[in-house]
Formats: sequence, structure tokens, C-alpha cells
Amino acid sequence: MTIRAVVWGENVHEQENKIVGDLYPKGMHQCIADVLNAEGGIEATTATLQQEEHGLPAERLAQTDVLLWWGHAAHGDVSDEVTERVCEAVWSGMGMIFLHSAHFAKPFKRLMGAACNLTWREAGERERIWLTSPNHPIAHGLPNPFDLEHEEMYGEPFGVPEPLETVFVSWFQGGEVFRSGLTYKRGAGNIFYFRPGHETYPTYHDANVHKVLTNAVKWAYNPASRVANPTDAPNVPVDQAPEKIVERGPRLHQDGEEGFR
Amino acid sequence: MTIRAVVWGENVHEQENKIVGDLYPKGMHQCIADVLNAEGGIEATTATLQQEEHGLPAERLAQTDVLLWWGHAAHGDVSDEVTERVCEAVWSGMGMIFLHSAHFAKPFKRLMGAACNLTWREAGERERIWLTSPNHPIAHGLPNPFDLEHEEMYGEPFGVPEPLETVFVSWFQGGEVFRSGLTYKRGAGNIFYFRPGHETYPTYHDANVHKVLTNAVKWAYNPASRVANPTDAPNVPVDQAPEKIVERGPRLHQDGEEGFR
Amino acid sequence: MTIRAVVWGENVHEQENKIVGDLYPKGMHQCIADVLNAEGGIEATTATLQQEEHGLPAERLAQTDVLLWWGHAAHGDVSDEVTERVCEAVWSGMGMIFLHSAHFAKPFKRLMGAACNLTWREAGERERIWLTSPNHPIAHGLPNPFDLEHEEMYGEPFGVPEPLETVFVSWFQGGEVFRSGLTYKRGAGNIFYFRPGHETYPTYHDANVHKVLTNAVKWAYNPASRVANPTDAPNVPVDQAPEKIVERGPRLHQDGEEGFR
Amino acid sequence: MTIRAVVWGENVHEQENKIVGDLYPKGMHQCIADVLNAEGGIEATTATLQQEEHGLPAERLAQTDVLLWWGHAAHGDVSDEVTERVCEAVWSGMGMIFLHSAHFAKPFKRLMGAACNLTWREAGERERIWLTSPNHPIAHGLPNPFDLEHEEMYGEPFGVPEPLETVFVSWFQGGEVFRSGLTYKRGAGNIFYFRPGHETYPTYHDANVHKVLTNAVKWAYNPASRVANPTDAPNVPVDQAPEKIVERGPRLHQDGEEGFR
Repeated sequence: MTIRAVVWGENVHEQENKIVGDLYPKGMHQCIADVLNAEGGIEATTATLQQEEHGLPAERLAQTDVLLWWGHAAHGDVSDEVTERVCEAVWSGMGMIFLHSAHFAKPFKRLMGAACNLTWREAGERERIWLTSPNHPIAHGLPNPFDLEHEEMYGEPFGVPEPLETVFVSWFQGGEVFRSGLTYKRGAGNIFYFRPGHETYPTYHDANVHKVLTNAVKWAYNPASRVANPTDAPNVPVDQAPEKIVERGPRLHQDGEEGFR
Repeated sequence: MTIRAVVWGENVHEQENKIVGDLYPKGMHQCIADVLNAEGGIEATTATLQQEEHGLPAERLAQTDVLLWWGHAAHGDVSDEVTERVCEAVWSGMGMIFLHSAHFAKPFKRLMGAACNLTWREAGERERIWLTSPNHPIAHGLPNPFDLEHEEMYGEPFGVPEPLETVFVSWFQGGEVFRSGLTYKRGAGNIFYFRPGHETYPTYHDANVHKVLTNAVKWAYNPASRVANPTDAPNVPVDQAPEKIVERGPRLHQDGEEGFR
Repeated sequence: MTIRAVVWGENVHEQENKIVGDLYPKGMHQCIADVLNAEGGIEATTATLQQEEHGLPAERLAQTDVLLWWGHAAHGDVSDEVTERVCEAVWSGMGMIFLHSAHFAKPFKRLMGAACNLTWREAGERERIWLTSPNHPIAHGLPNPFDLEHEEMYGEPFGVPEPLETVFVSWFQGGEVFRSGLTYKRGAGNIFYFRPGHETYPTYHDANVHKVLTNAVKWAYNPASRVANPTDAPNVPVDQAPEKIVERGPRLHQDGEEGFR
Repeated sequence: MTIRAVVWGENVHEQENKIVGDLYPKGMHQCIADVLNAEGGIEATTATLQQEEHGLPAERLAQTDVLLWWGHAAHGDVSDEVTERVCEAVWSGMGMIFLHSAHFAKPFKRLMGAACNLTWREAGERERIWLTSPNHPIAHGLPNPFDLEHEEMYGEPFGVPEPLETVFVSWFQGGEVFRSGLTYKRGAGNIFYFRPGHETYPTYHDANVHKVLTNAVKWAYNPASRVANPTDAPNVPVDQAPEKIVERGPRLHQDGEEGFR
């Protein structure tokens, strides 16, 4: 059984910045998709901001097992409609992986319910990633620690809810730390945030990062069939209550009425 | 030191439905505020949907330690601007308590990042509330269990993230269960969801419910001073890094530049 | 790849009580092992209290992917040595499933670090199990809810730490509730507690319970290789520090010394 | 109302090692107690390993609101009986704070249910402590970050369960990171682990560490009255069930019988 992954890329820096374009001539999204496709059992395609509906029409999301998201310069250009659609797909069981500057992407902020802020510095410094949960499926096969010689710094406090599990914590040469790998669940959907991936560095060409990405896709994949209507709040009529009860007291709603939303 | 609480009420059913109006002649919000004011150490006022900015201008939120929220019929009438303002106040340290049908209120859905759905039945059946964390501050002084003879049923699955702590679980006469008291933290703000409170029943006249409400306000109160800019993501320039580093490699940003949002 | 499961049974009531012996002529442990073996991909054997080292010598635990544990009358007869051995196997990556009255088993209390107490009543009443996390792998393929017509009641408060996820909550005919399916992680090991399974009722002949058991074994299985020395606390000498540092200040320990334990 | 704190010290290095004795002439335990007593609202006394029952007879624990624990060289000399007594006090509502090398203390390992291991290096290197939850009560009044110029290194992975909240994460000069401030709850008891405090450095003379200690004592204090029998598992007879039920089916237990433990 093959996991259907979609790598969503903002695709702005690759077009406008020579350094980024040279590092990722086919775009970061295509680079990541190629990594995933090189691993057995994953079939990855791409979608970008510039496409109609940002490349994420409802029918495509319905066929997506895991969505990866990289954005930075153009978070504000993502439509609220697609944002909500992506969140509903997560609640219905689609896995989702947010990469680096996607900490400020609309779907991430929407799914976290928090400010998702942090401190940052672009100085090409060393990042060392420690496995705090070394036997987590996302850490499978990684050395503890592994280094990225050049990365942007992200520092605590990271404005996110307490995660289900803290998988990675980063050490930075300049003196900061950051919780770099965090898992969450929203509805039926598994969510993973992975810190590294600044566009001016070759992070997505790193073998350990490749391992994290493929592990994370496999972990986020929920084989259960998708929840049909993930926001429904069904009424259970009195005569269908699991235990026999008799209705009592005053009522606001009439039989068969929809609830307020 | 006095905790400044604001009880926000939608104030629709009280005006339009005789049963609700008779039960809560001054409105549910005023009833709850009276309960809080009867407890030493809390100073509670009210705000309603119909007021300008729904009674929650920025200056007032800045002076609010804990906000309680009851809404049902008119969730959609709450403006997105006030919703975002309320969420930012939570991230900056304001405590927040969501009551009953506020599971579908805009600020709750925004803070949870989830569908917040459930099943329901309005049959005046018995609800029995069990203390799963009997020594939690919110459970202080309560019998285990306590009953509400007439309540609306809310049933699992409840579409919310795994909480920090599960304080109450309800048993319903018709055969359902529900996680009725859940704690969360978003940024610096403590959040509590409390299930009971259907408008056609005298729930807010119940002594045990009074205890939950006053306990919850005290628990949600964060005495630390409010975070000034809870969504800021400050740049840390190279020369202010905690450890001396030398900038290396290519850059996307210029000195002193704002990050992308 | 086949998951190697061991079902540990106390095997006391089956020998001494005619009701239990008639329900489970080969013992509850063998009944459960048969259920697991009927599912593809699991190879289940049994171990019992009465065997040497309770059937769990170190070599066998090293070859066990998931251990299931049922005990009740003879918790105190389990040796401390085997208890600690089982816990170390969990920390090294063995999955573990505790069934019903095993809430008071030595390894469960040791792994939870808590009192693990509850209230109880043996009245053959109806238990209805609700899926609070219906898309969790352990809930795969189950109806929501499912009933067990005759079960012992366990009631809240359940004296366990807040779980990673609450998968099931039970409703009891007599008026209680219980968090019936809880997940934990200790070291590299996944742990699941499942409430039903009183020995005088045919619970382990129920098709939905079979589904829970097989799902739970698959969920608890950690395919990563076992941690060799799960309690080691290795010294990192100065000359092997990831960043070059010079030793400073006073020392308590000498080079290459073991730490205190 | 005054919080009654007891600072438990192993009191071995202070007697046997000149460096430690010179730094803490009255013992680390007395130094910490003096810090707590200098803060209004806390009344701190001490207990040591060498005293009868390690200074922790049952009557004293019953009068202790928060217990702090420092041990290192003599973890094995703490009796199992006192260990279990301390854990039961925690389950009944006593707060507990574990300091530095107490990660391997018997009560900590017992309460965590995990291996509690880590990596370490004694090189007097710089530790920088970042506030990951800057508005947590334990972080009140602290700068973010704060440095300890000379400390022992503790490195990830730290073999503890996922905490309720991660309050601090440390950066080490030699390249490691560590989750340095973690909260837990076991029964009615609040637990905090705080990493710094190696005996050959003046850590307990640091003003920021003083703030952490006093904040933690206030946070860990549970004002609810102590749970009388924190391990009891009471039977609820059929005629006292909240809902009227009729007993059915076979029984193992007789009326009024104690459950198995």
C-alpha cells in the first residue's frame, strides 16, 4: 500500500532569489518530493501557491494521505478558504507536516490555536539536533545527535501548545535552544512540526533530514478511512438513546432540528 | 488582590424564549456574574453580543483577568475581529472559561484548532459529573460525584485536542459519556471548558456549579503581568547572540529587517 | 514481519473457580493467545505465574515484542525481580498491554508511578464503551459505542497519570464512568491499559474485545531495535564533547569514573 | 497561610569533600532551606539521610506541604520503606521537587516509572537556561535566559515520561541540550524536576536559582486537604450504586469483601 504525499511549496524565493534558485533549481517542493519518492512506499507529488486553489482543490485533498507544507514570504497570500479546507482534511484524518518557516503558515496557526512565534537569526550558524525521544518512529535510523553546519536560528520560547511528544531539541552555536520536532493530533489527523529548512542553505539535501522527512510521512499516515463529515454534531433523538429514557422538562429545539453552530 | 472577571453572554434566548427569560430574568451572564461576586476576591462584570464591539473593546480586555463565555444561537454574529482580539488576550495571559454550547463559539474553535464537535440530545435527562482529578483546584470542595437532574446530553467523541488534564467526566441517563471538564494552555493563558449549562434548565442556580465557576476563575487567573506583544517574533542580531558567533554563508534578510508573517 | 506476543496469565481463578474454569477451559491467557493467533501477523504464546521465573526469563523477554498481562488474586506472588525485568524490557522497547485487574499488577504500578486505584462493584451490569478517539489505531474497525452486557464496574477516580491519549471512556448501568482505554509511553515502550475483562464473564469471547486486543498489539509494537542498556547514564568525556571546551573549576569525579546511581 | 517545606539532603559530599564543604558549610539542604525561609510565606526545615528514618517519619510527612530532595552518592542507602512512604505522601497531595542528581533518587524513579537516565560531563562549563513556558508560575520573575557559568552537563535523551509542561530547556557550552524544568502530577501531588545543582559549584548561591526554588515550592503546594487513604480501592455495593441496578450473573467476590491487591 502506497502513501500518497503532496508537498506544498510557496515557490517564491526559488523564483526570485538566485541563491535559493541555484540550491533548489526545481524548487524546494520538488526536491522534497524527489526525496520521498526515492523511498519505497511513498508516492509524492507537488502543489504550489501560484496554482489555482493553490493546487489543493477538495478532490485532491481527499486523495492525499499526508500533506507537507513549506511557506515563508507569502503566508498572507494563502486564501482563508483553502486554509479551512486543509484543516478540515486534517480533522478527517490527513496527516500534515509543517516545515521550518511554516510555523507562521495560516494552517499551522489555525491548527495550533496559538501565536506560534519564536526568535530568529540568519547567520549560517551550526545547529545540532538532539533526539529527546530516540525510539520514536520519526527518529528511526538517525544518529543522536546530528548536525546541520549552516542553518537559521530559531529560539525559544516557541509559542505553541505543549505537544503530544517532543522528539527533537536543537542546540545553536549562538547560544539558543529550540524544540525542533513536535507531534500533535487534531481530530483524526497526525501533525508534525520540523524546524530546519531555511531556503538559503542546503538543508533539504542533507541525508539525515531526508530520513526525518520519510519517517515523518510514514508516521503521519493514518490508514483508517477518512471521517466523512469531520465537523458534524449529530442530534441523537430520544428514541435512539442507547438507554431507554423519557423526555422531561422544557425544550428549546424541535424534533429533527439542526443544532446552532 | 481582586480577580477581574468578565462574563460574556450572547443574551439571545433570554430575550426571545420565555422559559429561559423566566429562569434567568437578568440574563445568564448576570446570574453567573452574581455568583462570582458573591465569592470573595472576584469582581465580575458582564458584556453581551449586542453591545458595541460585543462589549469587549481592547482596553477592557487589557483589564480583564478571566473571561467567561456563553453563546449558542448566534455564534456566527461574533465578529472575526473581536474573536482574534480575544485569542490574543488569552495568549498574553488572560484566563478563559468556555461554558456549554460555547464549544462551537468562534474563540473556542480558534484556540483549540479542532472541530470541537460532539453529539447532543435535549431531553432533560440526568447528568452525573464525576471528578477524575479530585484534587485539582477546579474540583476543590465538590462532592464526587454530583448530579444535575435535568440537562442536555453532550456525547463523545468530543472533537478537541487531548487536554492538559481531564478534571470531570459526565455520565448521562440516556447512555452517553462526555469529558466535561478539560484544561488547556495557549500561550500564557489558562483555558477551561465546562460542559453543563443548557439555557432551559436551572443549571446556573446549582450550588455545585457555582463552586466549579468560582474555582475555575481562580485557577485560570495568571498573576504574571500580561505579555506585551504576544505574537511578536523578534530578530536577534548576530552581535546580540548569547554566544559570540561570526556570520557565515548566504542571507535572505537584511540587518534589522522584519521577518515574514 | 510477525509480531511476537506473549500473553501472561495469573492462572489462579481458572484452576480454583468452576465458573471461570468453565468459561475459559484453557485459561484466559490461552483464550487471548488464540484470538491473537487468529489474526494475521501476530504469533502469540503464553506464560503463567506458576512457571519458573513466571515464564518470563530474560532471554524470552528479549524475544518478546508485546507482552499482555492479566492478574488479580495473586499480584503479591509476582517477584520483584521479574517485575523489574519486565519494566526494563518496556524501557528498551517492548510494548505492554495491561488488562482489567492488572491495574494493581506490580509492573503496572511500577510503570505508572501512581496508586492505580479505583472503585469497583461486581454486579454483572452493562458496560458501554465509547470511543473518545475514534480514529486511533486501537479503535480501528470498532463500532462507537459497543456494549458488554455483563461486566464488573470500575469507577473514577482512576489513580493514574494523565495519559498520552484517552481512547475509550466507559458508561456503567449503575451510574459510574471510567477511562477504559489509556495510552502511555515509558522509555521506548508503548503501554496500553484496557479496562474490561472480569474473569466471571465471557468478555474475552466478545468480537469487539478481540478487535481491541489485536489492534492494541499492533499499536504497541515498536519495530525499532531494542535499546541495549536502557538504564545506562554514560559519561561524555571533555575531549568527546560535541563542541570543543576546556575543563574548568573543581571536580568530584575522576576521568572515566562511573556516575553514582 | 504558611507553606511547610522540608529540604531533604543526602549530606554526604558536604562532610567528605572539602570543596563542597567550603561552598556549603551548613550543607546544601540548610542553604536551600535558608533561601526558602528568606521568602515570605514559606517555613522550611531540613532532614538528612543519616537521621532515623532519614528524618522523614510518617508524622512529619503528614505535616509537610512540599518536600525538596537532593541526593547523589548514596541513593542506594535510602530505604525502600521511606521511599514508598514518600511516594504515598505525594499521591495524597504533598508537593515534591527533585533537584539535579536526584534524577536517580529512588522516589523519583518510583514516581516516574521510567529509567530516568541521561548523559553527563563534569567540566565546569556554561549552562544557559531558556524559559520555554515564560509565564508558568515557576518562571515568574526570571530573565529569559539566565546563565550558570559553571555547571555539570546533563544531556538528552532524558529517560522520563513526557511531562505535563516543559518549563526550561538548557543549552550547554559543550554542545548538548537538556529539558531542565519539567512538571508532573501523580495522584494529588505536583512534582517538579529542576536540573541545576552540582555540588562542586555555587549553584545554590545564585539569585535566579533562588527564584526558581521559591516559585517551585509555591507552585507545588496543593492547598486541598490531604487524601486520607491514597491507595484505597473501595467497593461500591449494589445497593449504594448511584443508579438502581439489580445484581446479575456469577460472582467471584462476597458482599463486603476486600478486593485483591
